[in-house]
Amino acid sequence: MTVNYATPTDLSAVAGLRLGTACAGIRKPGRRDLTLIELAADSRVAGVFTKNRYCAAPVLVCREHLAAGAIRALVINTGVANAGTGEAGMAAARATCTAVAAELGCDARQVLPFSTGVIMEELPVERFVAALPLCRDDLAADNWSAAAQAIMTTDTVAKAATRQFTLGGKKIAVTGIAKGAGMIRPNMATMLGFVATDAAVSQALLERLVKDAADASFNCITVDGDTSTNDSFLLIASGAAGNAAIDDAASTDYAALAEAVTAVAGELAQAIVRDGEGASKFIAIEVGGGASAEECKRVGYAIAHSPLVKTAFFASDPNLGRILAAIGNAGIGDLDVDCVRLWLGNGGTEVLVAENGGRASGYVEAQAAAVMAQAEIDVRIDLGRGPARARVWTCDLSYDYVKINADYRS
Amino acid sequence: MTVNYATPTDLSAVAGLRLGTACAGIRKPGRRDLTLIELAADSRVAGVFTKNRYCAAPVLVCREHLAAGAIRALVINTGVANAGTGEAGMAAARATCTAVAAELGCDARQVLPFSTGVIMEELPVERFVAALPLCRDDLAADNWSAAAQAIMTTDTVAKAATRQFTLGGKKIAVTGIAKGAGMIRPNMATMLGFVATDAAVSQALLERLVKDAADASFNCITVDGDTSTNDSFLLIASGAAGNAAIDDAASTDYAALAEAVTAVAGELAQAIVRDGEGASKFIAIEVGGGASAEECKRVGYAIAHSPLVKTAFFASDPNLGRILAAIGNAGIGDLDVDCVRLWLGNGGTEVLVAENGGRASGYVEAQAAAVMAQAEIDVRIDLGRGPARARVWTCDLSYDYVKINADYRS
Repeated sequence: MTVNYATPTDLSAVAGLRLGTACAGIRKPGRRDLTLIELAADSRVAGVFTKNRYCAAPVLVCREHLAAGAIRALVINTGVANAGTGEAGMAAARATCTAVAAELGCDARQVLPFSTGVIMEELPVERFVAALPLCRDDLAADNWSAAAQAIMTTDTVAKAATRQFTLGGKKIAVTGIAKGAGMIRPNMATMLGFVATDAAVSQALLERLVKDAADASFNCITVDGDTSTNDSFLLIASGAAGNAAIDDAASTDYAALAEAVTAVAGELAQAIVRDGEGASKFIAIEVGGGASAEECKRVGYAIAHSPLVKTAFFASDPNLGRILAAIGNAGIGDLDVDCVRLWLGNGGTEVLVAENGGRASGYVEAQAAAVMAQAEIDVRIDLGRGPARARVWTCDLSYDYVKINADYRS
Repeated sequence: MTVNYATPTDLSAVAGLRLGTACAGIRKPGRRDLTLIELAADSRVAGVFTKNRYCAAPVLVCREHLAAGAIRALVINTGVANAGTGEAGMAAARATCTAVAAELGCDARQVLPFSTGVIMEELPVERFVAALPLCRDDLAADNWSAAAQAIMTTDTVAKAATRQFTLGGKKIAVTGIAKGAGMIRPNMATMLGFVATDAAVSQALLERLVKDAADASFNCITVDGDTSTNDSFLLIASGAAGNAAIDDAASTDYAALAEAVTAVAGELAQAIVRDGEGASKFIAIEVGGGASAEECKRVGYAIAHSPLVKTAFFASDPNLGRILAAIGNAGIGDLDVDCVRLWLGNGGTEVLVAENGGRASGYVEAQAAAVMAQAEIDVRIDLGRGPARARVWTCDLSYDYVKINADYRS
């Protein structure tokens, strides 16, 4: 089930990029599981990746190739994550880059590989390589929707977002796709997210923007608290729109681009939570009044990761003492609970639930129950100890989460 | 469902203690939800409590009264946790102590109150106080089983453990009871655990022993990663056995007592996990080869808290890459995954699953599948970076966990 999300159908093509998909039979036959994205020469690329120590072989190769620059292609497979695969996994990831390079006539170091799927299983390189010509023959600028489909695993809907704006008379497109529904607690970025623009922008600003956009989107979400081995978020700027290259972080041009990229990344990150495994509710947690943004985020994640809080949301049960217990567990040793306030809301209506260390005096459970019955729930907390704030998006924990993860693989 | 646990029926009485239970109707009518434990004069008591900042009013009162010493009674209610209840909750906890003191003819500061149940709801002091005379009339030395029953909430079985040994010709008993099945990730101790002995022991050694026993038992377990607001573990020594008082930590007498107390606490802690909400498997995680016990414990908890690992255990699915991903997420920034080894075992048979950053060369999935099908599973990890080790006990994540916590309260 997906919470108030439908894949947009009118995705803008991004000048300078072509996409192609094919059925490689990586894990299961008959589904498009291989995606090739070709970038125009002189495209700029910046990325952020998982901090999991068992990070996948393709992530290691990506980091290495990104450092060398001049990227011309991305290749993405589902079915097998190529993580926890040791030396053999590294060799497999390099072999896929070599095969793509031969297909497109570039160097293997100009190819970025991405994998997602089961951990600790070998990538079937032969089947991967055999399907590459099909991907190449399928390359087209308007294949964003097909690519969003092809990178799915336990996702129930494809995730995409798009924006257009104008810079100095030139039309600019920003289009992105992402996948992910479980093993979602990005540390640098989510499972797989790709956002491209045809705007021209300096490498330094692109690298700044990919981090800022990730922090405001993928780094705010969690489904189950499990940071994936393959998290990658890539920002591509082909420069094909012909605008004057953006190189000043204080310029209105950079602000316009940052706004569009952040909006696309935010929409993709929300889509991942809205399609979280077994999700029936979307919960936005705002924590303010903190001494630091870090402690606000810790409180947000303590709530978002509590199975007791998540099951209460699933049951629409205003058993909100569980939220207080989660706040108390966030590791703020000197938190004064007498200063903490907790609200529950939906669409602008808010109920003050707790203050002065306990239940708020005017609290009426029926009001909280009405909020809990909604599919979209806002949790707002004021820690009462400073000016910092942070945001976390999450979903509930349902029977279906257990079902999906007990069945996955089989 | 409980994993290989049955409540022992032959619990030794502990000289110097009498227990009584009654139906107070705290939350639901017709069940014994109030327990009174009377201690002989000159009993010694030491305890460890939750580190949750929203710690319950009775925990605050306990800490205060324990510091003053000369404890004569414990009173325990289920149904309402009296946590997240602010000033009113403190007044309620104090009122229960005053009522117990009047019943037993002692000072209110000689009473330790404990509560467990729903958070952020008021304790119905009148009903509590009205049932106290029934508890007093029920006081008897052989009521340990009834008390173990009366402190249950979502527990499906009562939890108790008992040991006997001899010190200088005197028979010594150590008997304990505990409750807890959800909101279990003790930070100092578990939900509620009470262990009593009639041995005579100095206050200093008792305080040392309660910490050591908690670290080797309740501080090794997790069901859902949620540290409760009410965790309390109390160790009582009545001294009524007449042994020469133990006051030397290097003595064989202390070693014998510590062994018995640690065994009882360990059995109770295991019982909590074996009766973990929805549990169908008991999983013992041993992490060795660490640079510190703390990092070993972090790895153990990263595995034990991963919903993906827990659902794989529930499904008996050897999707063991999820364990690697959890190890990689434990926050050891300089972990070299090429040095990590992972075994899966049951009853002495072990399968080497992973080494050199990936799947072990001799690994056969059918062997791991046979282990995963058991109700008792050992996970052993060698981090390959030092001599430290730690242990974590946990259970799987099943449909029933969601069902129990979506239904609780209603």
